[in-house]
Amino acid sequence: MLEALRESVCRANRMLPAYGLVCLTWGNVSAADREQGVMLIKPSGLSYDEMRPEDIVTVDFETGQAMEGARRPSVDTWIHLEVYRAFPQIRSIVHTHSRWATIWAQAGMAIPALGTTHADEFLGDIPCTRAMRPEEIRTEYERNTGRVISETLRQREVFSRGAVLVRSHGPFAWGETPEKAVEAAVTLEETANMAWHTMLLRGDAASPIPEELLNKHFFRKHGKDSYYGQGGGGGIT
Amino acid sequence: MLEALRESVCRANRMLPAYGLVCLTWGNVSAADREQGVMLIKPSGLSYDEMRPEDIVTVDFETGQAMEGARRPSVDTWIHLEVYRAFPQIRSIVHTHSRWATIWAQAGMAIPALGTTHADEFLGDIPCTRAMRPEEIRTEYERNTGRVISETLRQREVFSRGAVLVRSHGPFAWGETPEKAVEAAVTLEETANMAWHTMLLRGDAASPIPEELLNKHFFRKHGKDSYYGQGGGGGIT
Amino acid sequence: MLEALRESVCRANRMLPAYGLVCLTWGNVSAADREQGVMLIKPSGLSYDEMRPEDIVTVDFETGQAMEGARRPSVDTWIHLEVYRAFPQIRSIVHTHSRWATIWAQAGMAIPALGTTHADEFLGDIPCTRAMRPEEIRTEYERNTGRVISETLRQREVFSRGAVLVRSHGPFAWGETPEKAVEAAVTLEETANMAWHTMLLRGDAASPIPEELLNKHFFRKHGKDSYYGQGGGGGIT
Amino acid sequence: MLEALRESVCRANRMLPAYGLVCLTWGNVSAADREQGVMLIKPSGLSYDEMRPEDIVTVDFETGQAMEGARRPSVDTWIHLEVYRAFPQIRSIVHTHSRWATIWAQAGMAIPALGTTHADEFLGDIPCTRAMRPEEIRTEYERNTGRVISETLRQREVFSRGAVLVRSHGPFAWGETPEKAVEAAVTLEETANMAWHTMLLRGDAASPIPEELLNKHFFRKHGKDSYYGQGGGGGIT
Repeated sequence: MLEALRESVCRANRMLPAYGLVCLTWGNVSAADREQGVMLIKPSGLSYDEMRPEDIVTVDFETGQAMEGARRPSVDTWIHLEVYRAFPQIRSIVHTHSRWATIWAQAGMAIPALGTTHADEFLGDIPCTRAMRPEEIRTEYERNTGRVISETLRQREVFSRGAVLVRSHGPFAWGETPEKAVEAAVTLEETANMAWHTMLLRGDAASPIPEELLNKHFFRKHGKDSYYGQGGGGGIT
Repeated sequence: MLEALRESVCRANRMLPAYGLVCLTWGNVSAADREQGVMLIKPSGLSYDEMRPEDIVTVDFETGQAMEGARRPSVDTWIHLEVYRAFPQIRSIVHTHSRWATIWAQAGMAIPALGTTHADEFLGDIPCTRAMRPEEIRTEYERNTGRVISETLRQREVFSRGAVLVRSHGPFAWGETPEKAVEAAVTLEETANMAWHTMLLRGDAASPIPEELLNKHFFRKHGKDSYYGQGGGGGIT
Repeated sequence: MLEALRESVCRANRMLPAYGLVCLTWGNVSAADREQGVMLIKPSGLSYDEMRPEDIVTVDFETGQAMEGARRPSVDTWIHLEVYRAFPQIRSIVHTHSRWATIWAQAGMAIPALGTTHADEFLGDIPCTRAMRPEEIRTEYERNTGRVISETLRQREVFSRGAVLVRSHGPFAWGETPEKAVEAAVTLEETANMAWHTMLLRGDAASPIPEELLNKHFFRKHGKDSYYGQGGGGGIT
Repeated sequence: MLEALRESVCRANRMLPAYGLVCLTWGNVSAADREQGVMLIKPSGLSYDEMRPEDIVTVDFETGQAMEGARRPSVDTWIHLEVYRAFPQIRSIVHTHSRWATIWAQAGMAIPALGTTHADEFLGDIPCTRAMRPEEIRTEYERNTGRVISETLRQREVFSRGAVLVRSHGPFAWGETPEKAVEAAVTLEETANMAWHTMLLRGDAASPIPEELLNKHFFRKHGKDSYYGQGGGGGIT
């Protein structure tokens, strides 16, 4: 089962350039297997082209250390770990520097929910963390990045699919599987683009999507009463 | 004949990602066969890659129910049906969340006709519906979306090719055939892009295309006196 | 020799989608063979994919009538003809609705020369025609479009390579050969994009490229003292 | 060894269109072999498609003259040479007119460091040179362009990887190898894009990345204490 997850993590990493979410090696996908107490994550600095399932690094959930293989895990390993520990409902995380989400992160602004494209995936705006303090950067930088994400998310309801922006840095998105997490990252990027252009066109007159419509679209696609797709309802917990 | 239309609807759905009009599965094409009393439409949540003519769902024009096959129709089925019922001249509809048209829909603004690229396809601005009321969202949401489209279009002349924006949501375009409907959606997206950038460059000083030029370009390409293309005039009714 | 030019015109038309200058069938390339008294031009409404050299229409320079073959010439035929007649140094013309040049045309503004990318191809800003009068639109519309282009260009030095914007419509670019005309159209589109973004970033503080630098870059690449490329100087007359 | 470098320079030139950094032939890569006293550089005006290692021109470091082969070197040869002479730590240079970096160059503005994407590659803003004086343009234009770059860079610490904008012209980026120089050019282009959009969204309220975070990200990836990638630390000198 860990091997199936490893293949899924590898495939999801390779989807990042295919979806135009990354330049060079700027992005990584991980997944947690909580029963086995491990996290699987992209190796550091490896190109997506040459990545194979056996390159995916297995990291101990407790120690954060690589457990096997010759590869070093992503430098962002502790960010992922810290978020998994804080939110048991999060099973796979995608981090990229995708252009539009990163622009909002650099601006230090939440991405407002301005339409149904956004509401189809996210129930409300995409929050942005506070700036990190110098001492949080100097020591345990990656772990503190995970902590500041958790601090931000704890102020709202966290579903099994969602996204957050780290200020001056970039987006983290998550989903029930590596594939769903990549879909969340794709949707985030597209809605970040649309929100930017809506704001530039309308300025302060841009109005968020009405609450009723936000809920309608989100729950039309997710949760027990959803009626989208070929299967039954479900997906979001 | 229904089989030829089914193939055409399938092909048109697959053109959506080829023209860059959709992300993931965010778009659908339908067509009406009024003599047989049915509508053909994309199945819900299926990827365009794997779609085959036999996946296209046949829906009863009266009941809105799928008539055959194992697939569930698009969740937007009732939006399409309602528009077909209100306008007999509309034969095929494309709905997407294409980026630039959606930006205008999120801004709640009509797309102004600013040049001949627009006038070559659309005789006037692309209207945007009013916001839907909470009670219209709570019950019969999709059907009410179709009704608000019809309410908006009834205030103007509706040709067999055209487009409209649903506020906070996205564009619907139509044409005489699924292929023509996709062309309308492509043109809408490109002119939405150009209009956005013209407005940002010129602000309130941006002037709509003069009436004379708007008519000249539209009727140069459409209707009985058209002289564009290799065939005779025609196309728009 | 006319056959070689016909192939070159066909190839140049097919380069338009390859360079991202056209959507659907929105663009055409022509070339003049003044000795034979003919113009070769794209057929109306034909897709670039299926275009073969034998589809290119031969038009009489005097009458504007197609001389042979089953195809109808582009509806823009008289625009091209009128410009060739006014400027003997113009040998091939490209007309598109390429996004960025069209945005400036819709704004009714000349594209300012803001950098060396522009100066490498064009000696000064890209002018925009005045709005056409209703009576110019009602009768002989295409021919009057050509006349308004000529009226605009006569106010400046016209080289064998260059470009102009038709207000509310789009760009026309030209060169010594169909291939060079396409290169001019490509350069125009890229500099139109850069100029738009420079203006949005700097506003009125954006300063045109200094005269000295404009001349240096243009004549480094064109004319008898040029030292760019592998051949001798030359190109622009 | 010079042959390996020649292949690397050829490959890097061909990467420019693959990364979307160039239109037509607007860009060139060079490398210095200081022991042999030569610079290798792209031939002038040649398309990337047809370029082979044997087309790369060998230029004498002292005289600036092509030493062998039938090709003429890039017209920008003296810009490259002058920069290599001023900064021994620079080993390979990429010059393009890539869209977003050129927009900042046309605006005459430095690209501010607004996020970690920028800090991962560049320690601080990307400076823009002063405007060149008419007499610097009239004689020894390319050499004076190199001198004005050097004048700008001498005001700061120059690492073995970095970038600079030439006012009204475009970017120059460099790295330890041709491949690393191309990576610097890719990163520059992406961060130039993000910075433009961050500024438009936030205006003067856009805040540069905090000093602590800038240093953390740069030295996480570069220098003796770096812990990014699969090898040991290093890279930047």
